[in-house]
Amino acid sequence: MTSRPMHMANSYDPGADRRGLPRSAADLLARRERVMGAPYRLFYEEPLEAVRGDGVLLFDAAGRDHLDVYNNVPAVGHSNPVVQQAVADQLGRLNTHTRYLTHGVVDYAERLTALFPAHLEQVVFCCTGSEAVDLALRIAEHATGGRGWIVSGHAYHGTTRAAAELSPSLGPHNAIPEHVVLVDAPDQLRNDPAQAGPAFAARVEQAVAVLARRGIRLAGLVLDSCLSSDGLQVEPAGLLGPAVDVVRRHGGVYVADEVQPGFGRLGAGWWGFSRHDVEPDLVVLGKPMGNGLPISAVVGSPALFDPFGRDVRYFNTFGGNPVCVAAATAVLDEIESRGLIASAAEVGGHLVRELRAATAGDERIGQVRGSGLFVAVEVVEDRTALVPDPATASAVVNGLRRRRVLISASGRHGNVLKIRPPLVFGREHADRFLTEFTATLDELAGRASAPQP
Amino acid sequence: MTSRPMHMANSYDPGADRRGLPRSAADLLARRERVMGAPYRLFYEEPLEAVRGDGVLLFDAAGRDHLDVYNNVPAVGHSNPVVQQAVADQLGRLNTHTRYLTHGVVDYAERLTALFPAHLEQVVFCCTGSEAVDLALRIAEHATGGRGWIVSGHAYHGTTRAAAELSPSLGPHNAIPEHVVLVDAPDQLRNDPAQAGPAFAARVEQAVAVLARRGIRLAGLVLDSCLSSDGLQVEPAGLLGPAVDVVRRHGGVYVADEVQPGFGRLGAGWWGFSRHDVEPDLVVLGKPMGNGLPISAVVGSPALFDPFGRDVRYFNTFGGNPVCVAAATAVLDEIESRGLIASAAEVGGHLVRELRAATAGDERIGQVRGSGLFVAVEVVEDRTALVPDPATASAVVNGLRRRRVLISASGRHGNVLKIRPPLVFGREHADRFLTEFTATLDELAGRASAPQP
Repeated sequence: MTSRPMHMANSYDPGADRRGLPRSAADLLARRERVMGAPYRLFYEEPLEAVRGDGVLLFDAAGRDHLDVYNNVPAVGHSNPVVQQAVADQLGRLNTHTRYLTHGVVDYAERLTALFPAHLEQVVFCCTGSEAVDLALRIAEHATGGRGWIVSGHAYHGTTRAAAELSPSLGPHNAIPEHVVLVDAPDQLRNDPAQAGPAFAARVEQAVAVLARRGIRLAGLVLDSCLSSDGLQVEPAGLLGPAVDVVRRHGGVYVADEVQPGFGRLGAGWWGFSRHDVEPDLVVLGKPMGNGLPISAVVGSPALFDPFGRDVRYFNTFGGNPVCVAAATAVLDEIESRGLIASAAEVGGHLVRELRAATAGDERIGQVRGSGLFVAVEVVEDRTALVPDPATASAVVNGLRRRRVLISASGRHGNVLKIRPPLVFGREHADRFLTEFTATLDELAGRASAPQP
Repeated sequence: MTSRPMHMANSYDPGADRRGLPRSAADLLARRERVMGAPYRLFYEEPLEAVRGDGVLLFDAAGRDHLDVYNNVPAVGHSNPVVQQAVADQLGRLNTHTRYLTHGVVDYAERLTALFPAHLEQVVFCCTGSEAVDLALRIAEHATGGRGWIVSGHAYHGTTRAAAELSPSLGPHNAIPEHVVLVDAPDQLRNDPAQAGPAFAARVEQAVAVLARRGIRLAGLVLDSCLSSDGLQVEPAGLLGPAVDVVRRHGGVYVADEVQPGFGRLGAGWWGFSRHDVEPDLVVLGKPMGNGLPISAVVGSPALFDPFGRDVRYFNTFGGNPVCVAAATAVLDEIESRGLIASAAEVGGHLVRELRAATAGDERIGQVRGSGLFVAVEVVEDRTALVPDPATASAVVNGLRRRRVLISASGRHGNVLKIRPPLVFGREHADRFLTEFTATLDELAGRASAPQP
C-alpha cells in the first residue's frame, strides 16, 4: 500500500515489456508514441486496441467483445443508431454557429432547461466539460467580484488552466494556486455518515476563513455532485446542503459539476444535486450530453448570465452547433423513450446488492457504494484498519481486463474500483460483470485459475 | 467615426425595432433571448435565420440563398458529403477516447505532422482552438518556467480564462493581467511595409523589458500568423521573423496561432507561418480542421511535450475521438484532392485584383489586402487622413447582407471588412460577390438603389 497520490490510476506503463502484446497493438502503440508523445496515457497493463463498439460492447482487433463497464460518455450505447442518424441528417443539412438564428439549438435549450429548477432557465453551450467549468468560473467571478474557490481535496474539474487549478487530482506538478482552497471530501467508509454533512460544512467554513486570511474574496464552491474523483461519495442524500449554505452565507455561489453525475447516471432524476436537495447557482454539463459528440453547457440564471453577457459576452465557434445539438437531442430522446434513468436505478441497485453479497466475507473489500449506474468498490488491506490497497485494486482492474471486462480505478489512493457503464447496461450485462468480478477476486485469492488468453 | 474599441463589430442590436424582421426570425429570436440569454450575440442589423447550407451557400427560412463570404469553418463547403459520409460511417463503428488504442487518430496524427517542419513531429488533440491555445500556454510555461506572454494589441486567442487573458479584442471588461504585454500590430495601410518587421520586433523587445521590470519571466510570444483580429496584416512576407528572433534570444517560445490562417486559407502552403519563413515552437490549430466538427490540436516537439507529459499529462475526453478525427481526415482528403490551396491562391488573387480595380478611385477604401481567401478591405473617411470609418464599414456589411452576401468586419476600430469564404469558393462566387459589393458601394454613395426585399 502507498499513500502517495496516484498521478493516474490504471495507466499503462510505457516501460513495460511489450512482448505479450498482440502484434497489431504493439505496432500501433509504437507509432502512437512517436507521433502523439508524452502527454498521452493508455489504460491497462495490456492496452486495448478498440476497433468497434456496439451498445455496451467494445470489440478488439481480433473481433473479441469486451464488456464496457467504464465509459459514461456513450450513455445511450456505443454506435447508437438514433444518434448516428440524427448527426448524419444534420450534417447533410446545416452546421454553423450561434451568430445566426437556428432552430435546433433553441429547441434543445428549452427542452434542457425544463429539466432544471425554475431559476435555472438559461444555458450557454461549449464543447467540453473543461470549457464549461472554465466559463462558469468566469461568470461567477464577474458576478461576485471574488476569485477564491473551494473544491474537494481530490477534485477533478477539467484541463484548461483555470479548471486544472481546481483539480488537485491531476497530481503534484499541477500547482494549486493560493486562490483555491481544498477541503477533504467526506469518506463514506471511514467516517460516520450521519456526521458527514455537518463535518464537510465545517471544513468549508474553515476554507472560507483561509481565503479571508489570504485577502481573497470568495467566488464560490465547485462540487461534483457525487464527488466522483474523491472516490464516489454519494451518501447520505442531503450531504452537500450544509456546505452550500455556508458558501451562500459568505456571498459565494455554488457551481454543481454534473459532468459525471448528470443525465440520469445516478438513477435518481436527471441531476446529482437533486439527490442532495440543493439548488445550484450554476450547473456544468458535459460527457454524455452528445453521446461522444463534443458538447457541454453551463446552465444558470439571468442574475448571473446578464452581467457577464453585457460586459464580456461569450462566443464559442463550435458551441451549440447544429450537429452536436442534434446528437444531444437524440440523447434526450433515447434516455426518455427507453426509460434509462429508471433502468439505471434498477440495474445499479441490483449490481450493488449482488456485489455486497458476493464480497460479504471478503476482507479486501472495504465497501460497495453507489447510486444508479455509478458504483464504487473500495479495496483495502483489511476491514479493520481500512488501509487503501491500490495494488490489489489495480490487480482487479487488470484481471477483469483479461476477462474482457473494462473498469478502472480512482480515488485519492487509486484504490476505488470505478464501475460506470453506459446507461443502456442491462441486468444481463450486470450478471456477466458479476460473474467475472467474482472469478477475478477468486483468482487473486488463489481460488481460481486465470482465464485462457 | 469613433476610435473606441468595438466590443464586437457587426453585432445585432437587441434593442432595435423588430417589426421589419420576418415573423419566423422574430419569434425564434424572442425564444432564443429567453433561454440562451445575454452572453450570446447575433450578426447583422437583420439577423440571418439559417436553415440549410450547401457549398458556399446558406439558405434562409424562405429558401433564399445567401453567398457565404465569411465562414472559414466549413472550409471544404457547407454540408460537404465526403465529411458527412466519413462521420456517419465512423459513428456507426466506434467513437471513444485516447486511452484505448485506435488507428484513425494515429494515422491522422502522422499525416498531419508530415505537413509541418521536421521538428514539429508530435500532436496533442483538443476540441476547440481555445482549448488548444490554453494547452499550448501550459506546455510552454512548464518548459520555460516563465509565465509572461506577449501578444498583439488587438489579438484574439480564445475564450478560456487563460486564452481570454491573451485576447484584448474581447473588450475593456476582459482584463489583461500584468503577465501579458500587448504590442501594436503592424499597420499595413499607415506604416511603411519595409519597416514593419524591424519596428514590430522593436516593440516586442520593449515588451520583454516591461515583463522584466515587472519581475515576470518570459514564456513567449503568441501570434496569429496573419494577425486576423488586428485587421489582417499579412505583408510583407517575413514580417514576423525579427520579433520571433527577439523572443527566442530572451528564452521565450514562439506559438503560432494557425486557427484562422491554417489549412491553406492563405493560399500559400498549409500554414501562415511559412509565409514568414519562421518555424514555431508550438502551433495551434482549430476552426476548419473538422469542417465544423469540434477538433483542434497543438503541434510541437518532444522537447516541449516531454516535460509536460511526464509531469502533468493531458487528457481531453473528446480530444482526438474517432468521429472528429474522421471528419478531419476527410478535410485533408478534400483539400488535397480538390486542390483547394492552389484554388484559394487563384480565386483570392482574382478577388484582390478586382476589388482594387473596383475601388481604385474610391476615397472610402483605404486599402485592399489579403492572402489567398482571406481578404481585408479597410474602410476610411478618406485616403489622405486614413481615419478608420466603422460606420461605413458596418453599412457595407449590412448592405451586402440585404443583397444576400455574408461578410463581417473586424480590426481594432471595426472598420476592416472581413472577406473569408469557405475554401471551395470559386471564381464564379467571387464574381457574384464583386457585383454585389460594387452595387453596395454605389448604393451607399447614392449612385444606385437598394435591392428589392
